[in-house]
Amino acid sequence: MKKSLTAEIISVGNELLIGHTLDTNSHWIAKYFTKFGWALQRITVLRDSLPAINDGARGALRRKPDLLITIGGLGPTHDDMTLRGVALALDKRLVLNPAAFAMVKARYSALEASTGLTRFRRKMATLPEGAQPLPNPVGTAPGVTINVGTTRLVSLPGVPSEMRAIFTGSVIPMLRASKGQAPEEVSIGLVGIIESALAPALDRARKAFPGLYFKSHPRGREGGIRSLIQLHVYSVDPDSRAKLDNAIAYLLRELSKSA
Amino acid sequence: MKKSLTAEIISVGNELLIGHTLDTNSHWIAKYFTKFGWALQRITVLRDSLPAINDGARGALRRKPDLLITIGGLGPTHDDMTLRGVALALDKRLVLNPAAFAMVKARYSALEASTGLTRFRRKMATLPEGAQPLPNPVGTAPGVTINVGTTRLVSLPGVPSEMRAIFTGSVIPMLRASKGQAPEEVSIGLVGIIESALAPALDRARKAFPGLYFKSHPRGREGGIRSLIQLHVYSVDPDSRAKLDNAIAYLLRELSKSA
Repeated sequence: MKKSLTAEIISVGNELLIGHTLDTNSHWIAKYFTKFGWALQRITVLRDSLPAINDGARGALRRKPDLLITIGGLGPTHDDMTLRGVALALDKRLVLNPAAFAMVKARYSALEASTGLTRFRRKMATLPEGAQPLPNPVGTAPGVTINVGTTRLVSLPGVPSEMRAIFTGSVIPMLRASKGQAPEEVSIGLVGIIESALAPALDRARKAFPGLYFKSHPRGREGGIRSLIQLHVYSVDPDSRAKLDNAIAYLLRELSKSA
Repeated sequence: MKKSLTAEIISVGNELLIGHTLDTNSHWIAKYFTKFGWALQRITVLRDSLPAINDGARGALRRKPDLLITIGGLGPTHDDMTLRGVALALDKRLVLNPAAFAMVKARYSALEASTGLTRFRRKMATLPEGAQPLPNPVGTAPGVTINVGTTRLVSLPGVPSEMRAIFTGSVIPMLRASKGQAPEEVSIGLVGIIESALAPALDRARKAFPGLYFKSHPRGREGGIRSLIQLHVYSVDPDSRAKLDNAIAYLLRELSKSA
């Protein structure tokens, strides 16, 4: 069994913390990690604040994930400060990156509304020293990547269409190349049982099927008689399909015994 | 001007990290912090793993927020391990709490489906030493609160209806009692301008109106001529209403100059 590669996401933006915007970006990315057998270990949502980004990035790098993705804060305005925060965390200077500058330039020369390469536009091509830009096919700010020890750090913009385009073009190939085992999974609904009554049978199933992961999600109320539990069983073992089916059958037998 | 009280949220659950479930709980709570003038500084999403919860809780407590809320992992099953993780982070033992046990007991005695106070149900009344239960009017697992230095730690269940009921009953009164200044805010849509062209005017407005917070969210594309920017201006100053209106007027004048 191949060990899963690990990842973390840092999502930057006051709008996520004041309750204006729901962080759907992280959720969208999370599905791809699961699909390609990577293990997303943590999502951290931070303010548009240099000390917060510096501290959050340092913390994530200390845990040495194989991939660290930051989302948001790459745009032209003053409150877009992710790359400044990342540069602080890496103890690197920010420098105008020629490849990134060419990308930004090409983008604006195609724009009628262009009013020259102002410092606000140069800002989008100013990256931590040693970083490389990732093409943004649908917007102006390129993504950014840099290796930090064994961690690949990737910074993506927060506008969902741009984040998705860069992720699809530059990150998915990386996930695919280092593909882990996508989890085998079964999800069943159990009607008329409450979670605390399910717990003993679940405990026995866990002991009988080591390596499988059982998680129950109550969908009804424990405070009422009728109840619905979504039971999710999964494994990253490559040969676990039959084992999963056996575990479900075992669990249903155990439950019918106690009923 | 009253200083904002600070908060952090730790949201626990593999389902949030494998892309199965979107973390709407944190978003729901975030709105209340804003409403009552509290500053939510960070959201951390963690796996159902003791080392992860221990590490995440220790990290949050080191930053000394006034309030730390954990969501998820209070139920009866083995994968509900938030209180074990919190106890580790606090270097406290887990003990059966009589008040919590009475709450769980009362809940199950009202249940026809009750099959006794199994160890799985006792688990829901087993809290870090020194903690107190918070009544759960719609489910069985009580919320939990404990003071750690200047931080009030509150643990809520992950089932949204239960989380909301305990938050409304036990946390909102606390937010209200230590109410900060809710931010004054104005949000306007700017049509036909791209973000990098807005940036110089925004920069001048920031200098002219210190204390106001400007954030632009591109909703259209920089790669096209027509573009929509949502501009959000806010302040926690109590007397900022007129200032906000002036700032918007100033910004529109600056933009019409450069057009």
